[in-house]
Formats: sequence, structure tokens, C-alpha cells
Amino acid sequence: MDILVVGSVAFDSVETPFGKAEEVLGGSATYFSTSASFFSDVALVAVVGDDFPEEHKKMLEARNIDIRGLQTVPGGKTFRWKGRYEYDLNQAHTLDTQLNVFSDFNPTIPEDYRDIPYVFLANIDPELQMEVLEQVKNPKLVACDTMNFWIEGKPEALKKIFGKTELVIINDSEAREFAGNANLVKAAAKILACGPKTLIVKQGEYGALMFSGSSVFSAPAYPLEDIFDPTGAGDCFAGGVMGYLAKTGDTSEANIRRAIIVGSVMASFNVEAFSLNRLKALTVEEISLRYGEFRQLTHFEDL
Amino acid sequence: MDILVVGSVAFDSVETPFGKAEEVLGGSATYFSTSASFFSDVALVAVVGDDFPEEHKKMLEARNIDIRGLQTVPGGKTFRWKGRYEYDLNQAHTLDTQLNVFSDFNPTIPEDYRDIPYVFLANIDPELQMEVLEQVKNPKLVACDTMNFWIEGKPEALKKIFGKTELVIINDSEAREFAGNANLVKAAAKILACGPKTLIVKQGEYGALMFSGSSVFSAPAYPLEDIFDPTGAGDCFAGGVMGYLAKTGDTSEANIRRAIIVGSVMASFNVEAFSLNRLKALTVEEISLRYGEFRQLTHFEDL
Repeated sequence: MDILVVGSVAFDSVETPFGKAEEVLGGSATYFSTSASFFSDVALVAVVGDDFPEEHKKMLEARNIDIRGLQTVPGGKTFRWKGRYEYDLNQAHTLDTQLNVFSDFNPTIPEDYRDIPYVFLANIDPELQMEVLEQVKNPKLVACDTMNFWIEGKPEALKKIFGKTELVIINDSEAREFAGNANLVKAAAKILACGPKTLIVKQGEYGALMFSGSSVFSAPAYPLEDIFDPTGAGDCFAGGVMGYLAKTGDTSEANIRRAIIVGSVMASFNVEAFSLNRLKALTVEEISLRYGEFRQLTHFEDL
Repeated sequence: MDILVVGSVAFDSVETPFGKAEEVLGGSATYFSTSASFFSDVALVAVVGDDFPEEHKKMLEARNIDIRGLQTVPGGKTFRWKGRYEYDLNQAHTLDTQLNVFSDFNPTIPEDYRDIPYVFLANIDPELQMEVLEQVKNPKLVACDTMNFWIEGKPEALKKIFGKTELVIINDSEAREFAGNANLVKAAAKILACGPKTLIVKQGEYGALMFSGSSVFSAPAYPLEDIFDPTGAGDCFAGGVMGYLAKTGDTSEANIRRAIIVGSVMASFNVEAFSLNRLKALTVEEISLRYGEFRQLTHFEDL
């Protein structure tokens, strides 16, 4: 196993201007692991209720994802999220959240997962993220995500997590909010001062920025004519980043730049359909073709 | 003369979270021509009142800008704009606009300006932009800017202008509003269908996108720790683009990509101080250095 991810597995109900999906497979750990599975072997730790169907488990296993760490709570209900996107598609409007079995989630890392070298702490309570870190042994690279809810509710716990991770991958607005600074360069400096070597700021349709020491990398988003459903784009991005880093075993800055483009490629495919439908049909040839298109997209010559 | 620009010369009063400037030199034609003057000879056509001080004229002339086309209305008052920026600095909030002599502006192009090869129609009434085009003879490249006010008020006149220009340079929100489509790729296709060969979409702190045929180029913004005053950034961008194109005489797509980075460099310097204070002190060495930094900023290798 190359990568351990701890996060959510959920049923999502999503409305966009282009259609509607009811109780489809979602969750941060699901999107992350499916995306990362194109590059590396992934072990998933999460919790579901016994309403979680076999077909979803089979889909994950078909992608070679190890789901022995997916706990099933007898008589419990799986986490549900309901949201709507307006025409601009940049902002999800949450209509309903039912934590269900997720509210008592205690991530127990199976013994043989504890020395997996790459660890991704998807968006869950930072105190649970810390519990995960207390169980793993000398990981090569720990990365984490979070959300505004934890920035507002548990900033100190989050700061501790940032201090224990090499790579923080969060949204634009989250970076500004955590740092209390509207200027992204200053916000990044403040986050890096908490400990991580590298910060990646996701900017949705505007791409992503990487801050590492005094170096900055700006990655574009792929210009898509049809963005069907943005749900999971950030987790697919992180899955591509971590999947590529684990596959190559190279965490140099030059390789993190490549990994960010790989992540952008994965996110750009994911938004082309509801749930994991696009990734289910994706091929490695399509991934390298689009990587090449990113090079064209950003290419310019010396003066 | 390489470039003709027709637009506004104004007094700006600007408040930002970092300070305040009262009645300082501004206006689209002023910012554009100062920026372009680092690369090419510029002739400026605009109007001011007799309250416009000699020192500002001298500053423009010191940059080799031909201001014989700058009409002075006796007894008239120069155009004034007052605005405020909040912490995010992306959006100008207009507090007051006094058109003054600008309300009766009739752009008369001096005889010896009429065969200038590069023409930039800065943001003015599209009907006046058309009057300019009726006076010039076989320009090599015509570019234009506009604003939401004209998109809402005179969409048909604007459409005609787009049909007569090779290059449209507008803001993100303007492109979406003109096309009536929140998806930028679709909006760009709709604008290109009006006639221009190339569309450049300015995205403020997120950079710029170029659409030309089936080709797309994504340029980043320079990550600045101190953005002092965003006023004029878009016009400095356009000035850099046109200045570089006119200097090289090359309007190939590869060269437009370079020109966009040059424009981004000029905009990034301009926002470092109020009014034209940063550009006044700028050197060509600083420009090439920052161009090199843009290459670093976007560099990533093949898989």
C-alpha cells in the first residue's frame, strides 16, 4: 500500500443547472481514493452504515482500493449531503447535512496500514486527524485538507495539524480565513509559519497556487465548456497530487509542480459528470493527453 | 508613431485600505500610454479641461508620448472619478463620477495620426470608438476595451465594434455579461463569433486568459504581497500587450502570448503604488527581470 486516506464516504444529492442526482456515491475519501488509484495503491479508512450497498464497495475494490478500513456500523445510516450549485458553479450551497454514523466516527487504523508512507487527512475534525497521526509510524509525507467549519470552530487543533503535516491542500477562501488576511501571499506565509513545507491553494475555475519556501507555482484550470458537477473536484485534485507523488516517490519541488498538474487533470475530468461517473470511465491515455494540453495552455517563450 | 490610443485622461481620488490619494493623474488613456511607452511610440487622443496642469503634460511628454491630440476645453473641467477598494481589492466601488468635458468628447484624430498601424480604443462609448475607426486608415491591428455600462446600455453598438477589431481585451465579468453565459469558454466563443480574431479576458488577481481560434492560453497574475492600488491595472496590461506587439511587429499567436505576459508584468508593477508613481520610476531591466519570474512561476516539466 502506498497511500492511506482517512475521510468521509457519503451519499450526495446534488442539483446543478444541468441536472440532478439523488443519493449518489460521494465523500472526500471516495473521490480522493478513486482519483489516486490511477497512480498508486490506496487504503481507505472511513465509516458507513449498513445502508451502504455492495455495488459501491465493489466499484472501489475494482479500482484496487483496499477497503478493509471501511467500518460498517450495524443499524447505522451513511453520512448524507445535499447541495445545490448555481450557474457560476464556484460555490456549493449546502441544503442539508446528515452526519449519521459519521458523528461518532473514530478512525481506527488497521495494524498493517500504520506504516503506509503517504498519508492524506481529508476534511474531518482536526482532532480526529490528530488521532490518525498518533497511530501511523514515520510516514514519508503527510498532507491534509480542511474546511471553513473547522477553521472557525477549532483553529487551535487545526494549527497543530498544520504543524505536523508537510503539505496543506486547502481552498482559496479557507487560506484567507485561517490567516485572517485577504492577501493570498501573506496568508500563505502565515500558514507556512505553522510548519508545513508546502501549501497548495485550490482556486476552483482559476486553478491552483503552490507556496514552498520563497517559491511560488501557478497552475491554471483546464478551460471546460461543460462543467456538469463540481462536487469532489478538490478531493480528486488532492488524489491526483498524492497519487502521483507516491507513484514517483519524489517529493522535490519540481515533482510537486508536476503532481499539481496531474491533480488539476483529475479534477477537470471529475467535473464532467455526476458522482464518480467520469472517473469510472477514465483511461491513463486520457490523463496523459490532458497533461499535454496543460503544457500547451501555459506555454510562452522568452522575450 | 506606432500606437494610437483614444480614451480618458482623468483626476482620480482613490481610497484603499492602505492609503488615500486625492485628484491624482488617472484615466484609461493615461495608464495605457504610459505603460505602452516602455516599448513603442504612442500618440494619445483625449480631452481635458483647462484645470489640467502642465506638470502632467510634461510627465507624458517625458515618456515620449505624443499629446498633440490631447484637446483642452477652455473653461472646462477635467473628468473626475472617485472610488474605494475594500480589503479584497478585486472590485472598485465608484463613489462619484463627474464626466465634465468628457461628456461632450468628440475624438478628432489629427491628420498625421490616421495611418498609425496599432490602434487601441480604450473604454469609451462604443459609438465614439466607431467614430475613431471611421477616421483611421488601414490599421494593422485594432484592439478595444469596454465596460459593463456599455454592455448594458449599448450592446448593439459594442457588437459592431467587436466586429471591427482584431483583439478584444475585457474583464472576466464583462465577458460573461456580454455573452449572457457564466461559462467563460462559451462566453469567449460567443464574443469571437462577433468577429475578433483574439479575445483576452482579464481576471485581476487570477491572471488572464486568451482565446484565439481553438487555442487557449492561461497567464497567471504575479503574486504580490503588497497591492497598494489596483486602479489602472487593466489599462497598463493593455498598454503592455499593445506596446510589445507594436514594438515587435509580430501578431502571431506565440507573440501575443509573450505580449500578454509583458502586459501582466506592467500591471503588476502599476498596482504597487498610487497613480502612475510606480511606472514613473520603472526601468526596462525591472521589466525583463519580472518577465523571467513569470517563467519560473508557471514552469513545470513533462511527466
